[in-house]
Amino acid sequence: MAGDNQFDLVILGGGSGGYACAFRAADLGMSVALIEKAEVGGTCLHRGCIPTKALLHAGEIADNTREAAQFGVAATFHGIDMAAVNSYKDGVVGQLYKGLQGIVKARKIEFIAGEGKLVSANTVQVSTNNGSGGQNVTGSNVVLATGSVPKSLPGLEIDGNRVISSDHALKLDYVPASAIILGGGVIGCEFASVWKSFGTDVTIIEGLPHLVPLEDENSSKLLERAFRRRGIKYELGNFFSGVEYTENGVRASIANGKTVEADLMLVAVGRGPVSAGLGYEEAGVAMDRGYVKVDQYCRTSVPGVYAVGDLIPTLQLAHVGFAEGILVAEHIAGLNPAPIDYDGVPRVTYSHPEVASVGLTEAQAKGKHGEDAVKTFNYDLAGNGKSKILKTSGQVKVVQQVDGPVLGIHMVGDRMGELVGEAQLIFNWEALPQEVAQLVHAHPTQTEAMGEAMMALAGKPLHVHD
Amino acid sequence: MAGDNQFDLVILGGGSGGYACAFRAADLGMSVALIEKAEVGGTCLHRGCIPTKALLHAGEIADNTREAAQFGVAATFHGIDMAAVNSYKDGVVGQLYKGLQGIVKARKIEFIAGEGKLVSANTVQVSTNNGSGGQNVTGSNVVLATGSVPKSLPGLEIDGNRVISSDHALKLDYVPASAIILGGGVIGCEFASVWKSFGTDVTIIEGLPHLVPLEDENSSKLLERAFRRRGIKYELGNFFSGVEYTENGVRASIANGKTVEADLMLVAVGRGPVSAGLGYEEAGVAMDRGYVKVDQYCRTSVPGVYAVGDLIPTLQLAHVGFAEGILVAEHIAGLNPAPIDYDGVPRVTYSHPEVASVGLTEAQAKGKHGEDAVKTFNYDLAGNGKSKILKTSGQVKVVQQVDGPVLGIHMVGDRMGELVGEAQLIFNWEALPQEVAQLVHAHPTQTEAMGEAMMALAGKPLHVHD
Repeated sequence: MAGDNQFDLVILGGGSGGYACAFRAADLGMSVALIEKAEVGGTCLHRGCIPTKALLHAGEIADNTREAAQFGVAATFHGIDMAAVNSYKDGVVGQLYKGLQGIVKARKIEFIAGEGKLVSANTVQVSTNNGSGGQNVTGSNVVLATGSVPKSLPGLEIDGNRVISSDHALKLDYVPASAIILGGGVIGCEFASVWKSFGTDVTIIEGLPHLVPLEDENSSKLLERAFRRRGIKYELGNFFSGVEYTENGVRASIANGKTVEADLMLVAVGRGPVSAGLGYEEAGVAMDRGYVKVDQYCRTSVPGVYAVGDLIPTLQLAHVGFAEGILVAEHIAGLNPAPIDYDGVPRVTYSHPEVASVGLTEAQAKGKHGEDAVKTFNYDLAGNGKSKILKTSGQVKVVQQVDGPVLGIHMVGDRMGELVGEAQLIFNWEALPQEVAQLVHAHPTQTEAMGEAMMALAGKPLHVHD
Repeated sequence: MAGDNQFDLVILGGGSGGYACAFRAADLGMSVALIEKAEVGGTCLHRGCIPTKALLHAGEIADNTREAAQFGVAATFHGIDMAAVNSYKDGVVGQLYKGLQGIVKARKIEFIAGEGKLVSANTVQVSTNNGSGGQNVTGSNVVLATGSVPKSLPGLEIDGNRVISSDHALKLDYVPASAIILGGGVIGCEFASVWKSFGTDVTIIEGLPHLVPLEDENSSKLLERAFRRRGIKYELGNFFSGVEYTENGVRASIANGKTVEADLMLVAVGRGPVSAGLGYEEAGVAMDRGYVKVDQYCRTSVPGVYAVGDLIPTLQLAHVGFAEGILVAEHIAGLNPAPIDYDGVPRVTYSHPEVASVGLTEAQAKGKHGEDAVKTFNYDLAGNGKSKILKTSGQVKVVQQVDGPVLGIHMVGDRMGELVGEAQLIFNWEALPQEVAQLVHAHPTQTEAMGEAMMALAGKPLHVHD
């Protein structure tokens, strides 16, 4: 702890948004206090992005091993050793956690382990974890970054045993024989994919008509087809109506009268902001259904108080948290940063197959620009050599403004999440398809599918049956 | 065959350059004859890119299976079933071949199966494969696209059994217990990687000081380190001096006096143009050491005769062939296409780990712009969550002109070949690091490493120990 408790910047919450803000602010010469009740890295590193992707990779290895004969490799798959899976997962998290702690130290950020509460526009009261009692930490500016936790539905109790959240699912020490997943969004589909790879009999219940319902409908349909082929069951378009315990598990009811039984049910109906009892409202911070309201620079209604990450009603993604944290640090430093274009933020569901996108869906583009002002092209990965080699199928769909720039890119297929790097440049730089089409993509990569889609839209299709 | 033998465009050779030219020309309304003695798709599809990448993926599956326990998957690796590997590989090739044949038909290209010879500036004489005898095919324009074959060294006989080329290596029906690979370029390193994954004891002999010697030295060193860890041996900086047969294999000698014994030796010293005896010189086409000389529009010295692909002294890559073929078709059609910037062509070595690059190496950039005008940043994949999950290591190295655009990007690591899609956009659009740094990369992907490198060069490092 510094000699006094006065900092240029006090950040409440050490997750993606909070620590990114701290790193950038420290680099810009500010003295920074980062207050965190658990571990730096927050949900993403400890209970979100990283551990789920480790499980998904273990699932990929399991699938590869099970299907090795298809590729000429003689192997026997014996099963999943959950203790070893968790040790691998925790090892990845541990290494990245150590790296983050090192950066906190290297950038001379004051890390305060404790629970913070906003007690005025520039003061956070901290109950330190080491039991040394409360202290007040003040900052010329304060950033609220207390993140989110898994939500449930009204009346649905998460017992942590048979009815669980993603927090519990990440710590399971066994592979369930069967599982119901309540919610077909990103988190639900990722766990469905992992568990199926591990051998679980999975059923997803989603009230909306499609899996990953925020994605372009074409992507949802392709994911549904792929999941059906994998034997992942789903009930779409009918809402969950209740769950009851059975002798050894649970029975979920759906509004259409069907019931599904399984060992357990994962509630994946979204994440809600952590803001209750933290003094935000008392300090005058305007809120909306638990979220802190902000402007385009992440400023709250109280001068000098900012908010970032899952606590504000923007996309709940770690990389959005990073961007918001950096934006706030630069804004405070007077660098005049540009506001974030949230349409230009890439989105990935890391299931098998992956779903990745940036920009507008076809429906959104037509709603914004008019039916006739929008053109699309779907490049089928069946024409892509590398995808054939990987034995994956899917599409790269490009939504274009007629005679204008690319408005959205929507991809489905194994490993397509990595193509979103190129996709977001195309979208954010408002590229015309012909500007991409004239450039050369490496053969044989999956990125060629992006090039092929752009060539087709530019009127010069290559590996396409016209 | 059309009623007469007169076409707008006659293309000699149905590989990547030839067929891409045919497809684009047909789309532009030309009547096109495509003459090919073997199969449409050429080296790339039948004896190059595609089958080698299928073998590499089988190698990846073998490695995954062997190392499954690291990820918590209990499995036993029994071995490689080469018949099944070849069946998988041939299956991939066969499907893509069928697709290409379908496109040839759909675009109403006259495919002539036979050996062609240039007999005048606008006439190719064809000995058809079906034995119907010779015929002359004439075109308003002619494109030479006869490709390349594996080279050997003077006095080094490739017997196809113990001393083999990549053509033979792709058809092996067994896994050699040990192999010498003569040449540490792309092809040599890819086969070294495959065979090591399959269980072969591999030694590479390369006369130059580094593996993949055309890449940035940093990439070469990282690949060497990774290969050393995998147990792939190499002798660098000393030239091969000869090979002799032993009782059951071969013994290669190196100029430093060392010898290496193995079951067989793969000669991977490059590929040479197929131009001898095809009438090119007699028709007045200017040549240089077997290559056809062309200008920036792929025009040969004879008006109306163009040449593309491995036959001309540009980068021997399928995607360069595609680009050249398309360029020629558009040039003939009067579309005034821009010449190809070969520095902007992405390059990938699909070994484990992959090496991928675009633009200038650090040495080339310093040679062109001056020592002090060039800045670099190496982002270590140890800081990249997805790479940790994949248990791969490597770097994204960015070469930048001081206060100017990105001049080159050089990457090493598993799956980094897919990042070259974004890399080539950054290079070709002459982006400044800060223009990329302000955009959001998806977490946790490997593309984040690209974003991190750009952020560091833009003076705003995120996940970096300063």
